[in-house]
Amino acid sequence: MVDRNDVEAAAKLVGERVRRTPVITVRGRDLGLPGELSLKLELHQHTGSFKPRGAFNRLLQGALPGAGVLAASGGNHGLAVAYAARELGVPAEIFVPVTASPVKVQRLSRLGAQVRQVGEHYADALEASSRRAEETGALVVHAYDQPEVVAGQGTLARELEQQLDRIDTVLVAVGGGGLIGGIATWFDGGPRVVAVEPARIPTLHAGLAAGRPVDIEVGGIAADSLGARRIGGLAFDVATRTGVRSVLVGDDDLIRARQLLWSELRVAAELGGATALAALLTGAYVPQSGERVVVVVCGGNTDPSDLGPPRAH
Amino acid sequence: MVDRNDVEAAAKLVGERVRRTPVITVRGRDLGLPGELSLKLELHQHTGSFKPRGAFNRLLQGALPGAGVLAASGGNHGLAVAYAARELGVPAEIFVPVTASPVKVQRLSRLGAQVRQVGEHYADALEASSRRAEETGALVVHAYDQPEVVAGQGTLARELEQQLDRIDTVLVAVGGGGLIGGIATWFDGGPRVVAVEPARIPTLHAGLAAGRPVDIEVGGIAADSLGARRIGGLAFDVATRTGVRSVLVGDDDLIRARQLLWSELRVAAELGGATALAALLTGAYVPQSGERVVVVVCGGNTDPSDLGPPRAH
Repeated sequence: MVDRNDVEAAAKLVGERVRRTPVITVRGRDLGLPGELSLKLELHQHTGSFKPRGAFNRLLQGALPGAGVLAASGGNHGLAVAYAARELGVPAEIFVPVTASPVKVQRLSRLGAQVRQVGEHYADALEASSRRAEETGALVVHAYDQPEVVAGQGTLARELEQQLDRIDTVLVAVGGGGLIGGIATWFDGGPRVVAVEPARIPTLHAGLAAGRPVDIEVGGIAADSLGARRIGGLAFDVATRTGVRSVLVGDDDLIRARQLLWSELRVAAELGGATALAALLTGAYVPQSGERVVVVVCGGNTDPSDLGPPRAH
Repeated sequence: MVDRNDVEAAAKLVGERVRRTPVITVRGRDLGLPGELSLKLELHQHTGSFKPRGAFNRLLQGALPGAGVLAASGGNHGLAVAYAARELGVPAEIFVPVTASPVKVQRLSRLGAQVRQVGEHYADALEASSRRAEETGALVVHAYDQPEVVAGQGTLARELEQQLDRIDTVLVAVGGGGLIGGIATWFDGGPRVVAVEPARIPTLHAGLAAGRPVDIEVGGIAADSLGARRIGGLAFDVATRTGVRSVLVGDDDLIRARQLLWSELRVAAELGGATALAALLTGAYVPQSGERVVVVVCGGNTDPSDLGPPRAH
């Protein structure tokens, strides 16, 4: 279990190692919506996603083993762990499947990580990483289901609270649930936290329906960043305890939301980063009149070549 | 002449028709620089540049003629005027040369503007627009050299002042000088304002050297957004009066700055929008230790397809 004190402690520990990312408040009308809304532009964070918050909080808990740190992820989590390790001057080993794109491998290598390509699937890389951790004693940083990771991601909510006078509702994309777990922990008893999930990766939705975390089949276009197989136990617990609800959006809605962020705001989000906005665009979540809504744009690790020249309003 | 009161009045008049764009403060180290710096992310403004600030201030001065408003520009200025006119419910005619890209014409049309394609060059379109204004009585909105336009752009500086506790220096890209004119007007006697210009479009630089605005030959890769032939008289006056200096950067430096904004910050700026940062990267402007520098990222009307997947830090 993670509580507000853990998030507070994480904020102190991590300090200025992460960026205070900006918030922009816009008229809903600019996006075809009523009222107004704020966007937390977390895509401007180091390595282009919120993940360094949790990674730093995990790495800074105490002295690190000589073998350094270890993670299994070719995506945002892997980048964040590699970055945090480099910043702290410890080695990082990142496990990815042999099917990982050369671009991802190159990005990890540029950050100074040792990249290990093992097996056909993510599960193979994960298993290899566990074996390796037992061998070397490296500190394993889980992508979402570790208390320090969840508490670190929660610092986003604490920061957001300082940036806006009033927040009624926060919309957050969910993969394994590290971010929403941290945010719901911080906002417990405060603003409503709504999970937004691609209909083809409904980890929290399926868990809430089943009354416990359950495996789902991962599919669709946002699998790259939100593609966990089941919701993390920590996130599930806090979501259940604090009454987080989950709404679903389709893959086409993610594409539309990403395109709209670009054409109306010049924000180049990844599909996972555009997921929370999609809930408003589709009406999967409909705010009350006057409700102050914040959309977390949680990542920008996207190839923007398909965005094209911005279309005007 | 434009003074602080004009900027203050513009801020009141324009109000929430423009977005309060966010500021992000980052370690210089992230960009290979010492100290820290702040970026004013004005690319997130309506239509993707600062231009609506001036356009609204011009259009809101009084009752508008039935013929509406008129401008000559296929670029950021044209978009801003078309947008402001649509918002205020008046017709807009925008003159561009026949060589304007179909994408630009389409963007203007989407904003509801009547697009007139006249002549081979911008000068031809400008001349046609003047004749047309005499015929119809439409209000002409100049791209930079009108007091209401300069005062409107100055609202960026006023907003910035509210957003940061301390500002020593502001770096601003210069084309015709509307933005720097407004900023230098607001900051007169306060933070140092430094003009950054592509070496191939040194409008202010050439003017300061000659002691008066002079024609230059427009060239290089940023001509699309910064390609004025001479510095505006209003901007020249305020720059001279307040001691604005101008530093030059090369086209390659603009490309590097734009790429760095993307790879390190997921900010997709246009070349003109990356120009101010280039002065720090090249050492054209070297801050003192501890100097608090703000870089204005003034536009994001870019086709991001050449940015590619973000490279890691």
